[in-house]
Formats: sequence, C-alpha cells, structure tokens
Amino acid sequence: MAGVAGAFDPADPVAVRRAIRERRFTGFTNLVARTVVQGNLVAVPAEYADAFEAYCRANAQALPLLGRSAPGERAIPSLAQDMDIARDTGGYMIFRDGELVDTPVDASGAWRDDLVAFVLGCSFSFEALLQRHGVRLRHLDEGNVSAMYVTGRDTTPVGPFAGKLVVSMRALRPADAIKATILSARYPAFHGAPVSLGLPSDLGIEDLEQSYGGHGLTRLNPDEVPVFWACGATGQIAARAARLPLCITHYKAHMVVTDLPLPKED
Amino acid sequence: MAGVAGAFDPADPVAVRRAIRERRFTGFTNLVARTVVQGNLVAVPAEYADAFEAYCRANAQALPLLGRSAPGERAIPSLAQDMDIARDTGGYMIFRDGELVDTPVDASGAWRDDLVAFVLGCSFSFEALLQRHGVRLRHLDEGNVSAMYVTGRDTTPVGPFAGKLVVSMRALRPADAIKATILSARYPAFHGAPVSLGLPSDLGIEDLEQSYGGHGLTRLNPDEVPVFWACGATGQIAARAARLPLCITHYKAHMVVTDLPLPKED
Repeated sequence: MAGVAGAFDPADPVAVRRAIRERRFTGFTNLVARTVVQGNLVAVPAEYADAFEAYCRANAQALPLLGRSAPGERAIPSLAQDMDIARDTGGYMIFRDGELVDTPVDASGAWRDDLVAFVLGCSFSFEALLQRHGVRLRHLDEGNVSAMYVTGRDTTPVGPFAGKLVVSMRALRPADAIKATILSARYPAFHGAPVSLGLPSDLGIEDLEQSYGGHGLTRLNPDEVPVFWACGATGQIAARAARLPLCITHYKAHMVVTDLPLPKED
Repeated sequence: MAGVAGAFDPADPVAVRRAIRERRFTGFTNLVARTVVQGNLVAVPAEYADAFEAYCRANAQALPLLGRSAPGERAIPSLAQDMDIARDTGGYMIFRDGELVDTPVDASGAWRDDLVAFVLGCSFSFEALLQRHGVRLRHLDEGNVSAMYVTGRDTTPVGPFAGKLVVSMRALRPADAIKATILSARYPAFHGAPVSLGLPSDLGIEDLEQSYGGHGLTRLNPDEVPVFWACGATGQIAARAARLPLCITHYKAHMVVTDLPLPKED
C-alpha cells in the first residue's frame, strides 16, 4: 500500500477498487477500505434473479440484500461510483451448472449481458465496527480470515434456491463474545446478531478444524469461545445447488468494496 | 395463592407483600409479582451508609441502586406504598461483626433506629423480561433458582467494603444465550449484560456444581451454555467482609417486592 510501487490509499474505496482492477492490490479486503461497507457478490442470469432476491429476503440474516444491478449492468450506482463489478473484486468464481469451472481475477470475459449482480452484506463490515469498540479479533491479528462452516440447518427454500446455512466463526474471549453479540445485533445489514455460540454441536458442526474450504482461524485458545454468525456464502451454496447455467461469485475474502460509509454512531 | 386459605393475587405487589408479612406466602419471590421490579436488601448502620452507597456506585453492574431509606425508616416511598421493609421480605439474614447470627422471617426485632436500607436491582426482574421474549429459563421450569458463584474477580473497594464479584448463572441454549445477552444489556438497573459466558474458568469458577450456598440449578444439559450475570449478593459479601456491627439482608430468593412496573416496551 504505502511505500510500494502503485501505492494507494487503503482507506479510500475508489482507490482500493482501482488498485484491485489494476492488480496493484491482490490481498484479502478485510484489512483495507475499513470505513466502508463490503459485500458478497452473487450474479445470476436474469431469469433467476427475482427468485434469488426472494431467497435472500427469506433468509435475510445470512443474505442481507445491499444492492441489485439491472440485467447486464456491471455497476450498482446506489453502492459505488466508478465500479465495474466484473473487475473490481480481487477474485471470482465461475460456476456452470453448479460446477466451479474457473477462478479468474477478472470476470469480464465470462460476464453475460443477462447477468444480474447481487451484493449482500458481509461480516467484514461488522468486524471493523467490533474492532472500533475494542473487541479483539484474533484471526485479523494473525492476518487470517474467520473460518466458515456449512451447518446442519436448512435455509428457507425459494424456487430453485435451497441449501444449508453457512456460518462464519470467530474465536472470542467471553467478554468480547458478549460485546460482539450486543453490537452486531444492531446491524442487520451485516448479518445482525450471532446465530449460535459456545457449542459447535448446536449447529451440527462436529469438528471446528474442518472448516468450509479449509481456510480461516479454526483453533480456539483455552480462554476463547466460538461465536457463529450467518454468512453470505449461504447464497453461493444455494446458487450452486440450483445448478444455474452460469453463476459468478466473488472469491473467498475478496469482497465487493462499496462507497457506503459504515455507521459512525453506535 | 388461588384456591387456598389466605389466597392473594400473585400479580399484585401490595397483596404479595401483605401475604409475606402475614406468612400466607413463604415461597421464593421469583414466581410472584412478575410484572414489578424486585430487589436485593442490604441494611447497614447509618455511619456506613454513604460508603456503602459509593461501593454500589463503583460496582454498579453487580449493585444497581434502586432505592435508599432514611435512617431508621422502614419504608422507601419511591419504591413502594405500604411497605415495611423489616417484615415484607420472606426471610432475612442478620449479621453481627460479619457473622450470620440469625435468619428470621421477620426482622423487626433486630431492626435499629440507625439502620439505612438499600434496595439493589435483582436478576428476577430481567428473568421475567427474558421469559416474555421466549427465552427458556430451565431453572424456573424446574421450580428452582439460578445458581450463584463467588468469582475470582475483585470488585472496586470503597472504604471498608471490598470483596469478590458474585455472579448468577443460567443454563441456556445458544440461541437463548444470544437473545438473553442482547435483551439484558438494555436493563442496567437489573445487572445489564452478562459478565461472562461459555467458560466458567473465565471467572475462576472451577466446578459449576459447587455453587455459592449450594443451591440453584448447577447442571448443564449438553445443549446448554452457562451465562453469568453480576449478582447483588456481591453486596452481601462485601458487607460481611466489612464486619459491620450489624447488617441485615434478605434471605436467598426472598426479595424485596416493589411497586415499580417492569419496562413494558422492549
């Protein structure tokens, strides 16, 4: 960021998107653009868009809808100026008939004129708010991301969209677990309150070390409890299960960076 | 209550106090007068009253001050009409020089003209609010009270008053633990948010089955997590440790019943 070739201001969302687009920044977005809202990306063919929006609304804790593009439009003006949603995210996953076929850093080659992009609230936004209030997020201190798990809980199906709830887990000391619970509950746009805590078995998680995709901080210290929040990856699983002819999502921890400021007053 | 000799309306705090005074009701107060605030009682000689009030204010999560009597007055008009605080609580503990010397059902024989009574917020008030929101409190379903524990955490000392923080513990399923955390945080007058959860060791509690006084629900079901709130018994311990010539408190789970309505809007 500073002091390197192609330096950019990591606090400026326009600069961050531009740096991503030009490959001057290729890292996870949880440590940049921390004063603005970030989001999950799920783009589906227009014929499935209304059903996907209804699925999001029926499972709003996992899939809080921040914005939806017009078909073929690669911008969502309500979320960001100067955004090309097919290029401004650090990585993409391309699914055809539910199968992952490519993980490009630029999705413009695969983008179709009938795609509708959805941006869904993301826990990176509430992580920034938690840290502002002194909650220690050890996975960030360790340069990691939170672990995700596919739970045993069914989402509410709509049309072709169905599947299990995905959660993200943070290892927190009890006082921070309490503070994080109270604070996150104020932000339904970023998944709201936790869905569970303390007992992985409550969500049908047998082994914390077996996270979804095998990444993220999974080992608890003896003074930490696991706290679980609904996760936007729920939408990715549902879109895959629907076996859409084409579905494009962000790649893990490379989120859509918007211009929307995070709430200042809490 | 209904259908027995000396029946009274368990929802009417004046009737409950009168029934207690006349020994027509001798049970725990956590299942009566559920729409009004209940409180802990600590009465100390007037010369210690200002220091005790300062101790309460310095440890407000454990000792939220609801009312204070004038010296020798056995009423706190801001809390209740028709109250005789030396007789309207179902049981008392009399301490002399820090030693328990009696547990009468009527404290008027021991009451002195220089005693100042303090009423401190109590978890029975927030338990009623939690249940209203659908939180299952198994100890109540089982006709029990919550267990209390003396923690390893020091309170902030003031004058002769010092000691460890006492907590009450409720065994809650994870979703209820989350709901209870968010709800209780809104009510600082009834201890506010939990001080810990999930890990008894966080509070220096080695064995949940060894509760303070040996009472209350101490065994967790496999689908429950322990949630700990600061407890008004903290004041009793501090008053004992101060070895006051006289100190009168309520007897466990026999609380001061006030006329103050619980918050209706939440």
